[in-house]
Formats: sequence, structure tokens, C-alpha cells
Amino acid sequence: MNELELNLIQRINVGDSLTRTSWRYPNKVAIVDGPRQFTYYELNDLVNKFSHFICSLGLQVGDSMALLAGNCAEFLISYFACAKVGVVCVPINLGWKGGEIEYVLNHSGAKAIVIEEQFLKLANVVLPSCEEIYEIVVVHSGDLQNVGDLSERNWHSFEAVIGEFEGLEPEVLIADRAAISYLYTSGTTSAPKGVVSSHLAVYLESLGVCVEDRFSHDDVLAAMMPLFHTAQLNGQCTPAIVVGATIVLLRGFDAEALLSAIEREKVSVFFGLPFMFRELLDCPSISQTDLSSLRLAIYAMAPMPDTLLRQCIEVLGCDFALGFGQTEMNPVTTIFRPEHQLSHSGAVGTPQINVAVAIMDESGCLLPNGSSGEIVYRSPQTMTEYLHNPSATELAFDRGWFHSGDSGYFDKDGILWFEDRFKDVIKSGGENVSSIEVEKAIYASSNQIAEAAVVGLPHGRWGEAITAFVVPKNGQDLDPTEILARVKDKIDGFKAPKSIEIVSELPRTSTGKVQKNLLRRQYSAHYEEK
Amino acid sequence: MNELELNLIQRINVGDSLTRTSWRYPNKVAIVDGPRQFTYYELNDLVNKFSHFICSLGLQVGDSMALLAGNCAEFLISYFACAKVGVVCVPINLGWKGGEIEYVLNHSGAKAIVIEEQFLKLANVVLPSCEEIYEIVVVHSGDLQNVGDLSERNWHSFEAVIGEFEGLEPEVLIADRAAISYLYTSGTTSAPKGVVSSHLAVYLESLGVCVEDRFSHDDVLAAMMPLFHTAQLNGQCTPAIVVGATIVLLRGFDAEALLSAIEREKVSVFFGLPFMFRELLDCPSISQTDLSSLRLAIYAMAPMPDTLLRQCIEVLGCDFALGFGQTEMNPVTTIFRPEHQLSHSGAVGTPQINVAVAIMDESGCLLPNGSSGEIVYRSPQTMTEYLHNPSATELAFDRGWFHSGDSGYFDKDGILWFEDRFKDVIKSGGENVSSIEVEKAIYASSNQIAEAAVVGLPHGRWGEAITAFVVPKNGQDLDPTEILARVKDKIDGFKAPKSIEIVSELPRTSTGKVQKNLLRRQYSAHYEEK
Repeated sequence: MNELELNLIQRINVGDSLTRTSWRYPNKVAIVDGPRQFTYYELNDLVNKFSHFICSLGLQVGDSMALLAGNCAEFLISYFACAKVGVVCVPINLGWKGGEIEYVLNHSGAKAIVIEEQFLKLANVVLPSCEEIYEIVVVHSGDLQNVGDLSERNWHSFEAVIGEFEGLEPEVLIADRAAISYLYTSGTTSAPKGVVSSHLAVYLESLGVCVEDRFSHDDVLAAMMPLFHTAQLNGQCTPAIVVGATIVLLRGFDAEALLSAIEREKVSVFFGLPFMFRELLDCPSISQTDLSSLRLAIYAMAPMPDTLLRQCIEVLGCDFALGFGQTEMNPVTTIFRPEHQLSHSGAVGTPQINVAVAIMDESGCLLPNGSSGEIVYRSPQTMTEYLHNPSATELAFDRGWFHSGDSGYFDKDGILWFEDRFKDVIKSGGENVSSIEVEKAIYASSNQIAEAAVVGLPHGRWGEAITAFVVPKNGQDLDPTEILARVKDKIDGFKAPKSIEIVSELPRTSTGKVQKNLLRRQYSAHYEEK
Repeated sequence: MNELELNLIQRINVGDSLTRTSWRYPNKVAIVDGPRQFTYYELNDLVNKFSHFICSLGLQVGDSMALLAGNCAEFLISYFACAKVGVVCVPINLGWKGGEIEYVLNHSGAKAIVIEEQFLKLANVVLPSCEEIYEIVVVHSGDLQNVGDLSERNWHSFEAVIGEFEGLEPEVLIADRAAISYLYTSGTTSAPKGVVSSHLAVYLESLGVCVEDRFSHDDVLAAMMPLFHTAQLNGQCTPAIVVGATIVLLRGFDAEALLSAIEREKVSVFFGLPFMFRELLDCPSISQTDLSSLRLAIYAMAPMPDTLLRQCIEVLGCDFALGFGQTEMNPVTTIFRPEHQLSHSGAVGTPQINVAVAIMDESGCLLPNGSSGEIVYRSPQTMTEYLHNPSATELAFDRGWFHSGDSGYFDKDGILWFEDRFKDVIKSGGENVSSIEVEKAIYASSNQIAEAAVVGLPHGRWGEAITAFVVPKNGQDLDPTEILARVKDKIDGFKAPKSIEIVSELPRTSTGKVQKNLLRRQYSAHYEEK
């Protein structure tokens, strides 16, 4: 018995979970990707072949490989192939500009990259500044044209290299807490931070999701949110593969395409943002779509307005749950469960089985139910660290808890309410005001409001002036004065906006988050002008 | 941030799972123990208090504490208190004789012991030879009489020491793979072996059970099998605590008491041996018992005869599943699932989500479906090692797989069939014969057979002679010649017993396993006499 043999017997490895599923359900469909289908046997076989290719490049445990691809089978093949040989996968956010991609590729030390053909142009702009990446694998490539100035690097075709290797299980010594991925957070104010996720954290999170959301091998999951993001990747797809469910990959959100996939593939679970559910309901074909296979709809990023939620439950006829968390927690920390949806509308739920959730005050004391403070976590799902960033890691792990950066409280029923990102809390006239509380009052003031975002902008008298940006529904006219009057009926006077701006849209990240930092930057001189 | 703080944030610890559950469901009943009930808040509080007491004794991470108790709340309190401070719990098998207990106490290096009062006499016989145990905690003790020759040791009353400490969470640095328990296997032929179980293995197994058996916080579990055994402790109770279910402790199997508990406590899940289900069905009061709360009945140790299973499903009206595994795997490796019960009667199921199961031949090659060989495992649930026994560990972990010692095969549907313990395979006239195959033929030969056990006994001509021990139902007369004739109709001639002995009962371990080793020993001269 040597160290490798013992490791193969006892370790936690996310790649092993695919192996196990492929042995249990070899003939079950693992992935539907457009006209292509892969059984678990086929998926595992492709993963093994690609993992041998990765090894053949000389990549070793702890080396990293970037992944620039949309929602396609090759994304998951690459991710699991890396897992099986201990190479760290670095998914690239498709919403990033060249500069951010360049930063991440260099910061993560990636030595190789898998690129879906449609992103080759982008890659060709970025790669000249990423000299460590000497191995480039192109997905869906015929003859590898357009390699531009990068002809001295090693170019490979994904499909060709797959054909060159055997499907035997790779046997590599990999520690439980070896990194499986570096997931870079959006970095709204500073450079993106690389969240180091371990095999242990991701596997536990997958089991946690299976327990909490009752995933089974009978489930069919529609995956339309981007795979590069932890919510879709670890929150949904890895659990699905652990348990042996079928994943139907969609290239993004399109209401018609989603409805048609639900009916055609008998989708039981899917995950989207609140505005997607709105669009789904507004879709003319929904009344002719067979939705009877749906079991659970999961939403995230924001609470669902009560009226929308009730409509959704009625029309889709399935359970609803909100998943709350963050990349650093891999990611789900609390679940706003089906049984609480209508009674505690707007909450973010109760802790997920693997996560201890507490509220901490500024002095480091944990607070009782009803008291507001920072949401903090302890969990084996917690990230290992921020890559090459000991000071940010130190701050995040201060005083024996992971600091979420979120403000919130538990109510008397033990249900968690999210108040705001601490950085979005507005300090106005000596008071702290939750931007989200003001947004809720604005939403409640009129049914003509599609979206609202509230930020604090520099102001000579107030320090920060509460300022609202409002998008009207369907391009209608809205009267800011009227909205303001109604808002003042609903919240304390000092929380009312000093100004309401009607805009046609709000800046968003590629995962759908409103970029309040951009609003703050763009409108920083707003009160100087007046 | 120091090492302890980082550990508290990121680690896997079984004790932390109780903390989390007590925060999620503080007012939910965790344990019903006769007239006593403990909410999760109360259970966690008692566990924390007892863990501080353990520390006050000077016990440190890696020290061990023995536990000599029946199914009572204090068993689980002690187990989780040890977990929270990294002390290794050593549950004592209540079926052991003094010599075995003495061996285990000394072998495990236990420095303290928790004893339920009813076992004090036994302890007083054993403890004089266990000089390292200087701290003795008695459960349910008034004034600590009868300490006999052990008055120089430190005696404590469980209830008194609980009152001396605060319920704050202990904060101790404990590694993911630190030992949570040493579980000693029965040791039918040699000294008991101490299976070292890690926090990581037990926690993963608990999540695996929650996924596979769909445990939820709405479940009520009746626990009548002994807590000292991994099947009840890790297979059922730890998952129940992880997920927040209620555990109804029963002092052992009594059909009337179980039926009454099912109705009174609205039990949804319970676990027993096949003969217990037989007794349950024969219980006159079953027709008047409200069994509507039952969701899942789990059995183990042996397949359920088909007719009994069908009766059970009809009368109990719930799903049935068999759990297969062994202490070294903590313990469940395959689950014979409800949907396969009637179509593949006699199988042991498909792999549990955390476990890779394969069949290996003598040369170390993995075999395809349909081929028989040794059942081998890979899983993060696998034990760490056999305590102080590197040679047994080396044997068990040979060639990169854990060796179960079981012979079996996968059928064409990918379902596992257990053939025999390798040590129970009979080598007769140059052929290997599964004792279990012969037993099945005997059961099928007459409906007057309560039990049958088949072993190989030394024989001048055959090497081992296949020999059957048969217990008739209700003390009826049975004709061995007639049985033999019918058995020969069912199996190959060389597999037929050379002799059938009618006996009134079979020797069993305290967990219900037939002790074939005792039969072999007692009847070793059987064929010499003839």
C-alpha cells in the first residue's frame, strides 16, 4: 500500500463522484446539449480521455487551466477532467472585458486554456499578454485558422485530442482540500479576487444541495444561467452529476426556448433570476406549454416580489425556493424554502445543512434573533482562501468566522433577512440607510416600475444623499414627484430619496446583478450640478 | 487569524453538525427517551456542558473515552460531546464478555469511561485490569455506591458534572480526518479490530444517508437497534441529527413496544433485522395500530424472504430498503432500494452515492457485470485504519481498494448480489460453495423452517463437509431426510449438505448475526464421531 493507493481509496474528489455516477447509471442521459446527448458512461469516458490529455501537456496537481466557454458539454467535460487530475479550473466570466480576462489569466497562473471557437477573437486579443499560457485547446474547431500572432503556441482541437487517449480512470494523488477551481468574483471596486474552492468544499456543497433540494437521479435540470458562475456550476450542475440527474444545457435565458425545453425534456428543476420568471409568465406560449414535469424552481440574487411569486406558483405549479450565498461559500448558505415563501415574503431563508450562520456586531459578538449586524458563516464549504491575497483572506476570516459583507438579521422565527451589502448601505445625515429598504418602498409605490436601484451619492450637506434610479415598465411615463410622495408614506422621512431619476435601464453584471458601483461612479457629481 | 480560528471556520466536524441543527431547529424534539424529551437546543446545551467536563478531566484531542451504555440520551450526549472536543469515543458492545471488554478498553487506550448504572457490576469486574482508566462517569447515579476496589479512581455522576459547566460552544482545533470513534468489530476468529472512523467519513456518510433515504427534519426515527453498533449510530442516528429529525430511543427490540411507539410518536423511519419484521407481523396488536406515519423501513444483515417482504409491504404500507455495508465503511455501501425489492429479491442493491463498488478477482483485476469475486470499495467514507494494526490495515487496503471480505457480483442490471463472507465459503471436494446459496435452498424446501445456517466442517474425504443447522418453526418436528431430498431438487448435488442437524436455536452476536464461527468450533469433531 503506497500513498497514492490510500488516497484513491479514501479521498474526497469531485471527479470521483462522476466516476461513481457513471458506474451506477451508465446508460442514463447526463447532458443534453442541443442535438447532442451524452450518457453518463459517455461523459465519464470523455472526461477521462481529456484528463489524460491534460496530463500529457505536463500539467500537474495544482497547476491551473482556464476555461473560456459558454454552456456546452465541453465546459463540464473540461471541469471534471481537471478535477480528476488535480488541475485547477479557472472559468472565465463571459461578461468580462479584455483587461479583466488578462488580469485573471495572469493572476491565476494558467498554463493552458480551453476556448470555445466563438470566443477565439476575444482570446486572440488577450493571449498575447498572457505568456504563460502555451497550450490552447479550441472547442468545435475544424482546422484552427486565425491563430494570429500566437502561432508559436501549441494549438489543439478539443475533438482531436479526445480521440488520442484511452478512457481509463486517471489515478493521481489529490488531497481532500486541493483546489478544484479559482472562481473570480466580479470585483466591482477593486481587481477581481480569486476564490480558491477545494474538492472537499464543492463535494460537501453538492451533497448539501441534494439533501436540501431533494435532488434525485429522476430529476432533469435545465441549466440556462452561465456555467462559469458558481450558482449554476456548484449550486446546480455538480449536485446533479453527483446524484445522477440529467442536465439540459441552454445557451442562456430565452423564455420561449426555456418553455420548449421544459416540455420537450420534461424538466423538473431550473434556476433563474426574478426578472426571468416575469418574462416567462409574459410569454404568450406559456399557456400551451406542458409544465407538469416541473418540481422546483429556484431563484437567486434578489427576492421575488410577492405578486410575481404568487403568479409564478399558480402558473408554473411547482415549489419555489430562493438560494442565498456567495462564491466564497461555494455558494449556497441559506435556502428560502417553499414552505416560507408566502408567509415570510422577502426573507432569504434558513441555513443550509452544512452552514452555521450568525449575525456579528462590530465588536465581534454574535447577536440574538432580531438584532441586525453582519452575516457571518462557518462551514466546511467555505473557500480555502483568496488566491495570492493574504490580506483579503485575513479580513474575510476575521475572528473565527467568514465575513459575508452582508448586513442582515434573523427574525423571531429564525429566518434570515438580508438588508444590504455593507458597501451599499448609505450613510446619510449620520444615519445608516439600507438601499434595499428604500428600493422596496419604491416598488410598492407604483405598479408601473420595472426596476429601481438606490445608491448614496456625494452631497455637501448629507454626506451621502439617497438617490433612486427608476426604470418604468414598457417605456411609460413616470412622475418622480408622485413616486416620492408615496414613498414618504411608507418609510421614515430621512430614508426618502433626495432625488429620483427616471432611466431606461440599469447597468448589470453578466450574471444579472445591478452594478451600483457604476451608478455611483457615473453620477458622482450629481449633486454638484444642482 | 490563527490556526484554530481557520479550523473553526472550515473544518468538517460531526459535533458541528449538531450545533448547526440546534440553531436551525432549537425547539424541535431531538430525542425521546422514555418519559424524557430533549429539544435540539437542550441536547446541544447538554453536549456542550459535557464536552467542557471532558476537557476538564485533561483529555485532549486524540485521547479516547469508552462508553458502556444502552440506548439512552446520555449515549448520544457523550458521543457528540467527544466529537466536539476531538476525543475519540469507544462504544462498548453490550454483547461482549468481560475479557473482550478488557481487551478493547486497554487496546483503545481509553482514559475515561461513561457507564450506565445498570452496567456497573460488569464494569467493576473489568476495570481493575484497565489501569489507564482513571476517570469514571456514571449515568443515573444517586450517590455512587458499589465502587468496590476502585475507590482510588475518580468517580463522577453524569448529572452532577453536567450541572457544573456552561453550555458555550467549545472551540478546539480538530482536523477533518481526526478520529471520532474506534468501533471494534466482533472479532469472530481473532481479537476484535478497532476501526478508526474519521469526522470526515462519518459526516459524509450521514449526508449520503440523508440523500439516499430522503431523511428530512420531518422524520421521526425509532432507534431500537443498539447505539454501540455503527448501523444504528452512523447509519441512522447521526444522519437524523445532521438533518434535524426526531430520534425515539427504544431499549431494544420488543414488537409490542415498537408498535406502540410508532403510533404514539408518529414514527416515519425504523431499522431492524428480518426476524424482527416477522415478529412484528405476528404481533396480535398490529391490526389495531395506526401505522400511517411510516414512510420507510430499513433492514440489514440478511435479505428478507420474499413472502415475508410482501406481507410486510402490505401490512406496514411503507417503502422497504436494505442497507448493506460494514463497520469499516461507516457503514452503508449499497442500498437495495424500494423500487428493486420485489423485482430482484435477495440482492443487496446499488452503490450509495459516496461509494464506488467493484468486483475484484484474485489477481487484482476488476471484473465486469456477471462475474463473481471479492466486493471492493473506494469511498471517502472508508475507515482511516485498524487501530494499532498496520498489517491488517495493509491487507484491507491492498491494491488501491478496500477489501470487504465479501464475495459477490453485479448482475446485468448493475445490482449487487452478496454471495458469502469469504471465510464462510465452503471448500468441499475441490469446489467453492456459498453457504448462503445452500441456506436459500433449505428455506425454499419447507415452510416449517424458522432459520438455517450452513457451515463447512472438517471432513476426511471432502476437506470441508457442507453441514446445515436448522431451527424448526414453533418447535415442530422436521425430517432431515425429507428436507435433504427437496434441497437436492433445487441445487447441484455437490452443494447439498452432507448432514442436516435440527437444533432449537442458533448462536448470535448481540447485533443479531449468526455466529458461524461458533458453530464451526462447537461441531468441529462432527464427522469424526460418525
